[in-house]
This record gives sequence, structure tokens and C-alpha cells, in this order.
Amino acid sequence: MPDSPRARRSAQPSRFRAHPAQVGVAAFALTIAIGTVLLMLPVARVGPGGSTLLEALFTATSAVCVTGLVVVDTATHWTPFGQVVIVLLIQVGGLGIMTFASVVGLSVLRKMSLRSRITAAAESGSVGLENVRGLLLGIVTTSVVIEVCVGALLSARFVFGYGEPLGRAVWLGLFHAVSAFNNAGFALFSDSLMSYATDPWISLPIAAAVILGSLGFPVLVQLRRFPRLPRKWVMNTRIVLAATVVLLVVGTVYLTAVEWSNPATLGQFAGPDKVLAGFFQSAQARSGGFNTIDWGQMDSASLLGTDVLMLIGGGPAGTAGGIKVTTFAVLFFVLLAEIRGEGAVNVFGKQLARAVQRQAITIVLIAVALIAASTVVLMLLTDFSLDVLLFEVISAFATVGLSTGITASLPVGGQVLLMLLMFIGRLGPITFASALALRQRPATFELPIERPIIG
Amino acid sequence: MPDSPRARRSAQPSRFRAHPAQVGVAAFALTIAIGTVLLMLPVARVGPGGSTLLEALFTATSAVCVTGLVVVDTATHWTPFGQVVIVLLIQVGGLGIMTFASVVGLSVLRKMSLRSRITAAAESGSVGLENVRGLLLGIVTTSVVIEVCVGALLSARFVFGYGEPLGRAVWLGLFHAVSAFNNAGFALFSDSLMSYATDPWISLPIAAAVILGSLGFPVLVQLRRFPRLPRKWVMNTRIVLAATVVLLVVGTVYLTAVEWSNPATLGQFAGPDKVLAGFFQSAQARSGGFNTIDWGQMDSASLLGTDVLMLIGGGPAGTAGGIKVTTFAVLFFVLLAEIRGEGAVNVFGKQLARAVQRQAITIVLIAVALIAASTVVLMLLTDFSLDVLLFEVISAFATVGLSTGITASLPVGGQVLLMLLMFIGRLGPITFASALALRQRPATFELPIERPIIG
Ligand SMILES: [K+]
Ligand SMILES: [K+]
Repeated sequence: MPDSPRARRSAQPSRFRAHPAQVGVAAFALTIAIGTVLLMLPVARVGPGGSTLLEALFTATSAVCVTGLVVVDTATHWTPFGQVVIVLLIQVGGLGIMTFASVVGLSVLRKMSLRSRITAAAESGSVGLENVRGLLLGIVTTSVVIEVCVGALLSARFVFGYGEPLGRAVWLGLFHAVSAFNNAGFALFSDSLMSYATDPWISLPIAAAVILGSLGFPVLVQLRRFPRLPRKWVMNTRIVLAATVVLLVVGTVYLTAVEWSNPATLGQFAGPDKVLAGFFQSAQARSGGFNTIDWGQMDSASLLGTDVLMLIGGGPAGTAGGIKVTTFAVLFFVLLAEIRGEGAVNVFGKQLARAVQRQAITIVLIAVALIAASTVVLMLLTDFSLDVLLFEVISAFATVGLSTGITASLPVGGQVLLMLLMFIGRLGPITFASALALRQRPATFELPIERPIIG
Repeated sequence: MPDSPRARRSAQPSRFRAHPAQVGVAAFALTIAIGTVLLMLPVARVGPGGSTLLEALFTATSAVCVTGLVVVDTATHWTPFGQVVIVLLIQVGGLGIMTFASVVGLSVLRKMSLRSRITAAAESGSVGLENVRGLLLGIVTTSVVIEVCVGALLSARFVFGYGEPLGRAVWLGLFHAVSAFNNAGFALFSDSLMSYATDPWISLPIAAAVILGSLGFPVLVQLRRFPRLPRKWVMNTRIVLAATVVLLVVGTVYLTAVEWSNPATLGQFAGPDKVLAGFFQSAQARSGGFNTIDWGQMDSASLLGTDVLMLIGGGPAGTAGGIKVTTFAVLFFVLLAEIRGEGAVNVFGKQLARAVQRQAITIVLIAVALIAASTVVLMLLTDFSLDVLLFEVISAFATVGLSTGITASLPVGGQVLLMLLMFIGRLGPITFASALALRQRPATFELPIERPIIG
């Protein structure tokens, strides 16, 4: 339809300048390509010869998209060189995604404020840095400070608690701190962190780094600027913090209760350690991806509950994936307003912009459709059961990295699908949400209104 | 909060008159109670003694809610008296739900049109009968005409194709015609209609009755009044017809393709019979509940795809369950408008009322939450796998009645949960949607608008 409104709309100049979203997608693809080449070098792999293209590409994609799903064992397949490449890819991916999402978010906010004439000041306060260089600097500083602190704590524990030599302890501490803050879930132990399930000195710093990373950069900025002034926080900060606390508590209670007497998981621990491990899995479920118990042994009900947590994910413009807690919260508040019979959706004393409501629905519907279709494809390709396949698909799409252990056993087609899901899951919601927000325009004419019967 | 706006709102007189929704729920509960008592009589059960309370209550609930899930074999457990009770419960349930939904729909439309000052004429044209007695008469007439026609076709086939004596053939024909038009899925054969998988003279009339019933009474009225004037059809009619055709085709293609060479299902048939059986299961999946192949032998991918079809369900104010195709279509058109960057959601040349969009989201979110929670409960109660439990839960909630055969093996708690799901699934979306629509009110004051970051 060359003469349709859609074609005319494309004449708007903003659509043919390099939109930050396009730059972001290209940068991520390039980083993955470079990572793949480096990981294919024989020096990156233990033993003779290099890794296959699929192994290297999958690992690079998983690292750059800060997911943590693996088809080869990070601890034994890769040399220290390979592991350094992986941690660098994680760091670049994490910084990239925070910068990218913040820039895209800024451009959306600017455009929105220009269009809808809402004062931009209150809004842009949610980022607070007005140019990309300053933004990147702030993100790098924040990341490095948190990673060094957590890395130091972990290193100390590895030295004093486990008698590791200092050099190796620092390497272990830094690798896992970087992997944790960037919500990447890569570990240097073949069983992730299962040896440390009952050690709060390892699991709590890692959980803290994961949670901080998952809040998102805009929230971290506001927390640093107004740590004790909640009334100065913008809606985004309030929603992310409230949802994070609620989801952490709900996830901990649920997983701890369901697995309490499962001898293969929490059943082996004493009471307080059950809660510690329950909390750790809950903290990892919304994007971290480390595990201290074996997800392959979890009850199906735990997998299903975790599917929901993974799908919700973390805060926007952070290292967490998923549809984001803000999207989930928007739907929740729409539901609440509807049940109360209120015309406007009010959240923490502000009214929720109407366009955001529709964007949230759109993102959730597309995510659910993508997950359902991918799960069906994997069901047709393999003989694994629905619960483990659904878990794997959501873990990839929400860039969580938890797995019941089937990743390496999937056929090539299944692994390629997971790579696509990681890439789309990492960049899709951000670019898509921004595209939706930027393309929103007032209708030029209105049709008569009609309502079909619902329900 | 006695002084909150919610308390004040309750002073509106409309909320304390007997709302049709309350009358409807009470009438359904009473009918189920009467049916339970009748089915517990020794005369209703083959062999000595009566059925247990659970057997009778489950069967009565399943019949009145026109679902078709059973814990005892309809063909061998019940006497002809018991089967007559069941078919009467189905008929009362089907007529009841059509009348109830139409009345509630009318009251919603009146209230809406009064409030929003939209011309009521075009809207109420979707029902066309202005009082309950006339409405009921129209519904009874329509039902009887369709049931007698389909029953005659089936009876003739049972006489001439299978040599049944005339009396039994008429009984078989009528029972299955009533069960089909009311989307109840009860059959007088222990294996449902599996003996007739390749007989189009049985399966096509039944599929036709199921589809007609699932369109909903408002659509049937418009089709009778303006059979060849699609431009006279209201949005409801257009959406239901378009969605029905699309979903039938998609379901047929999907199920036929997935099961094509499964030796336990379609693999046993010749090519055209595969398509016939694929079409039949597709036609039953959105609420009918009969089956001509064994769902316990279907591929997991078929179950998952069917979950989606069942959840979508049929047209409103008909005998089909689920969230209704209109609700699904509203979400689809919202998504389409959002992707196109259009402010208003336009459907078939009319603008979709904004309130309906939020109601559709609310109903879907509540349905999904209810299904997820129920599935988790069944996973904790039993050892069945996610795919069969999810299938069972959605089948009950959407009053479909298909099963992989686990219904009778569930523990008492699981069967009680299924009963609740059938009742809520049957009455919930209608009453809930009407409550939402009636309570909608303009905001008395507006808060400042803010948008969190999405995606
Ligand atoms: K991750
Ligand atoms: K049914």
C-alpha cells in the first residue's frame, strides 16, 4: 500500500536518521561476532584445536546478552584466556545494555515530553545525565565501584574461608562480581555455585550484586542522589523498588515452601540454610542466573513459579532481562483500576500515561506469543517435557540463564533458537518499546466508537 | 476505609438492586444442587446403591456448566434416567447461559449507552429483543430448531448407517444434538465419538451444531435477520465470525500437521480422514469437548496449541466458554494499532471503545492468573506432568471438557478445584465483564500524568 498512511508516515525525518536503537542492535551483533572469533581461537579452549562455531557463537551470544546459558562447561572447556574473553564480553554487554537502554529511554522521554508538552524536567530526572558521554561515564563508574566492592568481599572469602591463593581468589572474586552485577550468571565452577549454597559470605554478596544490577541505572542514580527522600523519586524508581521487594519476598517464600522437603534440593539443608538457599534462587530467578541448588531436581511447581519470575524480570535500563517489572506493574495497576471501576490508572499519586498502558500490553502479548511459539518448536524438535522446555525458553528470552541442564543436549536447531531468543529478549523489548513510544501519534480523524461484548 | 471513594460509590442504587448477574449465579447454583440430588438417586445409577456426592456433584456441575469433564463413564455409570437428567441439565445450563449472558449484555449496553450517550440503537441491535421473556423465547426457539435438525440428521445416520432401532437412534441423535449445540461434550459412548472419527455423517453435523452454539445468540439473531448483509452486522458479529473462521482453519491445519503421522492418533487414517478428524478436533477445541481421537495420545505440542484455542473460546452470549473470541480480538487489534503507531484502535471501520480495551486486559490477566495458580495447586497435589495438568485446568476453566483422561484419577481436592474452575469459568467472565462495565465511572479529579520506562 504505497499511498497508505503508513507510507506517508515514513517521510518523517526522525525515522531515517540512525536511531539509537539501530546503532545498539548493530553494536551488539558486532560484539558477538568479535567474541565468537576470539572464542574459536585454539588458545581459548582447553586441549588441542579450537571450539566449533556453534560453541563459540552460543557462548559469545550468551555472554554479551548477559544470559548465562551454556552448551560447554565454562570451568573446564575454556582456558583462562577464554574465560577472560567471556568476562570482557559480559562487561561490554552489561555496560552496553545499560547505556543503550538509557539513551533510548532518554530519546523516548525527550520526544514524549516535546510531543505531549509534559515538563521534561521531572522525567529526565530519572536519568539525570543529559549526554551520552556523561551517561556512559556514570554507568562505568557505578559498575566498577559495585563490582570492585563485591569482588573484594568474595576474594576475601575465597582466601580466608577456602584457602585459595591470593591471585586465584582475586580472579574468582572479580569474575563472579562482574558476572553477578551484569546479571550474566556465568560461573567458574562446573556446578555454578552449588558448593556455596550454605555460605552467606559468598551467596549474599552475589545476590546483592545481582539485585543492584537488576534495578537498572536510572534507579541507582536516584538512590545515590536522594537515598532518604522517597518523595523525590520518580514513578519508575518507586515501581522498581516496590516490585523488587515484593517479588523477592514472594519468590523466596514460594520456592522455600515448595522445595522445603525435596531431598534433592532444599531437603538436604537445615532450616536457616533452606531459607538462605530459597532466597538466593529467588534473587537469581529474575535475571541473575546463578544457582546453588540443582534446577534439574526442582519440583515442576517451582519451575512454573520461576517461569513467572523470569518473565517479569528486573528494572528497565539495567542488566536484567524479561518484560521488566515496570511493564508488569503497569498491567497490575490497570487491573486494579479496572476492578475498582476507576477511569484513570493512578500509581503512587501520579496518573499513568495512557499510551504506556497499551505499550505494556503490546510487549507482554508479543513476549507471550514468542515464548509459546518457541516452546512449540522445541516440543516438535525434542522429546523433553513441557515444563523443562518452557523453563529453558523463558530463561533464554528473559536472559536469565537458569536451566534444568538440557541446553547442551538440544539439537542444533534448538540451540540456534535459544540464541535468537537471547538476542531478541535482550534488545527486543527496549527497541520495541522505544519504537512504539516514538511512533505514537495523534489520530488525524476518528471513526465512530463501538464496543463488542466482552467475556 | 469507610470514608474512601469506594464506600461512597456503593451508595449508588444500581449496586444494591438484584443485578441480573447475582440472579444468574444463584440460578446456576440451584440448578446444580437439584441435579446433584437427582443424580444421587439409586434409580440414576446402574447397579445397586446411588452415586457418591462427589460423583453426582461433579457430573451435575459439568452438565450445567456445559463442560463435559467426567469422573464416571456417562455411558455405563448412569441409567437412562440418569442420562435424561444429564441432558436436561445440559439444556437448562445452555439456555440459562445464553439468556443470562444476553440479559447481562443488554443491561451493560443500556447503561453504557446512557452514560456515554452513544446511540443505543446500533448497539442493542446486537441482541434485538428488548425484554427477557421475548429474549428467552427467541433463544429457546433457536435452540430447539437447531437441535431438532441436527438430531434428525444424526438419528437417520444411526438408523441407516449403523442399524440402530428407531427409538434408540432418536435418543442417540437428540442427546448428542443437545450436547453439541450447548457445547457440552457429553457423549453416550465410553470413548466419546472415537468410533465415528472417519464418518462425516456423524462428525460434521455435530461439528456444525457445536460451531453454531459457540457463535453466541446475538450473532445467530443477526445472521437470521441479515444473512446476506454483512454491512448491517455490528462489530460483535463481525469479530465473532471472522475469528471463528480463522481459528477453525488455524486449528485444523496445526492439529492435522502435528498429528499427521502419530500412529496413535491421525496416523491410523487415510489422508482425507486425517483432515476430517483434524477439523473435528479443532472445531471441538474452542468449547465443544467431543473427541474422535484420544487426547491422551496426542503430542504435547498439540496439547499446548489446543490450550490456546480452548482459552480463547467462542462468541459471547453463546454456549462456548473461554475468555471469548471478542476479548482475544480486542487484544489483537490493540496490538495491531500499537505496532502501526495509531492512537485509536479501529476495527472493521469502527473505533473500539477505550473502556473495552482495559476490560479485555483485565479479564485475560485474571484468567491467566487463575489458570496458573490452579495448575500449580494440581502440580503440588499430583504427579502428573505440566502439559496434561495445564490442559485439564484450561479445559475446565474454558468449559471445554477435553481431557487426556486424568479427571477420574485426580484426588478429591483436585476434582473440587476443577468444579470450581468450571463454575467460575462459566459465570465469571460474564458477570465480571458486566460488573466492570457497570462500575466504570468518570474520574472526579485527575492526578498529574507520568510514565515509567517500559520494556
Ligand atoms: K542472566
Ligand atoms: K464443553
